[in-house]
Amino acid sequence: MRTRLICLAISAALLALSAYGQTLAPREVPAKSIPVPSTVSPQMQAIIAQPLRTNWDKPPTTPEGWKQLADSIAATVAPQIPAMSERMDVKIEPSTLNGVRIYTITPNNIPAANKNRLAIHVHGGCYVLNPREAALPEAIFMAGFAHMKVISVDYRMPPEAYYPGALDDAMTVYKAQIKSLNAKNIAVFGSSAGGALTLEMMLRAKQENLPMPGAIAPGTPMSDVTKKGDTFLTNAMLDNVLVSQDGFCDAATMFYANGHDLKDPMLSPVYGDVRGFPPTILTSGTRDLLLSNTVRMHRALRQVGTVASLQVFEGQSHAQFYRDDRIPEVKEAFGEIAAFFDQHLGK
Amino acid sequence: MRTRLICLAISAALLALSAYGQTLAPREVPAKSIPVPSTVSPQMQAIIAQPLRTNWDKPPTTPEGWKQLADSIAATVAPQIPAMSERMDVKIEPSTLNGVRIYTITPNNIPAANKNRLAIHVHGGCYVLNPREAALPEAIFMAGFAHMKVISVDYRMPPEAYYPGALDDAMTVYKAQIKSLNAKNIAVFGSSAGGALTLEMMLRAKQENLPMPGAIAPGTPMSDVTKKGDTFLTNAMLDNVLVSQDGFCDAATMFYANGHDLKDPMLSPVYGDVRGFPPTILTSGTRDLLLSNTVRMHRALRQVGTVASLQVFEGQSHAQFYRDDRIPEVKEAFGEIAAFFDQHLGK
Repeated sequence: MRTRLICLAISAALLALSAYGQTLAPREVPAKSIPVPSTVSPQMQAIIAQPLRTNWDKPPTTPEGWKQLADSIAATVAPQIPAMSERMDVKIEPSTLNGVRIYTITPNNIPAANKNRLAIHVHGGCYVLNPREAALPEAIFMAGFAHMKVISVDYRMPPEAYYPGALDDAMTVYKAQIKSLNAKNIAVFGSSAGGALTLEMMLRAKQENLPMPGAIAPGTPMSDVTKKGDTFLTNAMLDNVLVSQDGFCDAATMFYANGHDLKDPMLSPVYGDVRGFPPTILTSGTRDLLLSNTVRMHRALRQVGTVASLQVFEGQSHAQFYRDDRIPEVKEAFGEIAAFFDQHLGK
Repeated sequence: MRTRLICLAISAALLALSAYGQTLAPREVPAKSIPVPSTVSPQMQAIIAQPLRTNWDKPPTTPEGWKQLADSIAATVAPQIPAMSERMDVKIEPSTLNGVRIYTITPNNIPAANKNRLAIHVHGGCYVLNPREAALPEAIFMAGFAHMKVISVDYRMPPEAYYPGALDDAMTVYKAQIKSLNAKNIAVFGSSAGGALTLEMMLRAKQENLPMPGAIAPGTPMSDVTKKGDTFLTNAMLDNVLVSQDGFCDAATMFYANGHDLKDPMLSPVYGDVRGFPPTILTSGTRDLLLSNTVRMHRALRQVGTVASLQVFEGQSHAQFYRDDRIPEVKEAFGEIAAFFDQHLGK
């Protein structure tokens, strides 16, 4: 087997050499002016038309600077939460669970089929941003659109705690829940760093011989933080959220990793052994800097036979599929995830 | 209902206006030099490294010119067919069926489950290219990887026949087959123009009250030939096969359309009523000029509840997923389509 692999590697190397000499030529793509596509809703057009994120290439350089940025984002989001909760018809309670800060989001009306189901939410924000209420929009949308109780983990972030603090906190919540609920009745979801954390939780659950949840929904996961993936470059300066792999998100991840090997599957789950993962639905957009991270993760799951569904939305940049519950494409994305959960979760 | 739709349209228009004035700003993307990704096989790296297609922006301008181009491509492909057939362990027989030229590709070993199954292949080539043997590689790979009999339709193309000649020929073959075989045992597949023809066949079958096949696999379909779709621009000059929406493929489609309205769902099936379509698997790549055409079609199918699966391959340009049967990603793509057919076709 090993000999065969070596032969394959040698012949592949020869193929590349013989066809193209020592190096493969890059593609030279000229500058472009790209209009907002007419093939999405007017509301999504307005999102796509927004300029590149302010200060995308000027990340904080001190722990205090990161904390200030996180706090200022949270201060912007917090006032929006009451109206959002009212539109989605849910109520929100903060508490702690075995020392971990959580928010419980409960729909005012839960259909019978979802009475014994729960979705655990791990928020995004490059492992450093979106503390407290800033984490909640995605969780509220899931509770509202899927009509299911959601627990959102307000995990510790730098400078309070570094790798693997976020993962530890998420696992604490998962372990507490599977004591009272069949794991098959639980979904885990989150986007960006939350998508990576969702996948990392599955790897950790395997290590600890815990049962798998019934389904997971990693949205545009940061499945590879080693700067590998074609759309890091092809969608650079096109994605108006992350903008570039050399921007704030990479800096934040380094801050969280705190010197830990970025290739460790607990930071780059695309390199993990994903055999035995539960049914998975992945979401991305054609302008998403992490489109490659998403489709590579989809392929990795399919290569081992996991039930894995991919949805890619026209023209959207990173994580815009949960930008605003009033946008048709957002309802559509959550509708798909809700249907996937309904299909695969136990009752 | 109508009033509600008008109100929605008005409020959407107001949203766009109030937020961004009269026009939405385009995204200005600087020139880039994009290396061949390391995240695909060495064989696929060699394909991705190929320069832009020769003469992509110099299409023929006369019927004779198109015929010469088509013939020269066919002359290049034809000598490769015997070795391809041997590798895939299939035999090929040309014939005619009710006046339509076809090739029947039969695996030398057909498993019991596939004895009464058939896949009908409608080839790509912008409705003008890939006559005769040039159409066969995708059909041979399907027969070989799915272990299923395939009939490839060598439909008439301009200047022999214009719209809807290709569709008429494909329907003639489909109608002949459903006389002797349960439609549910039949798959229909093809890529690019062949992907569009696959979808157009379903629309035509609905018009004629014919039964739907068991499953279809439109690969990177030309589902919108009106130049709408974000990746027509975002992936321009990056996709080394189609290169640009202003290239040879657009010119060829105009030649086939022969003045017919390009927005007709029989040329742009993304605008068709796709209710009742059979289970569908769509395939594209992150550099594909038709990635938007593919994901928009996927969304259109999902919006009406059709079972529809999407696979998107890292770094690939248009239709490179069937470039060569010896490439790991090609085996993977056909493995997925074969599994999808096996899951959904009758026996």
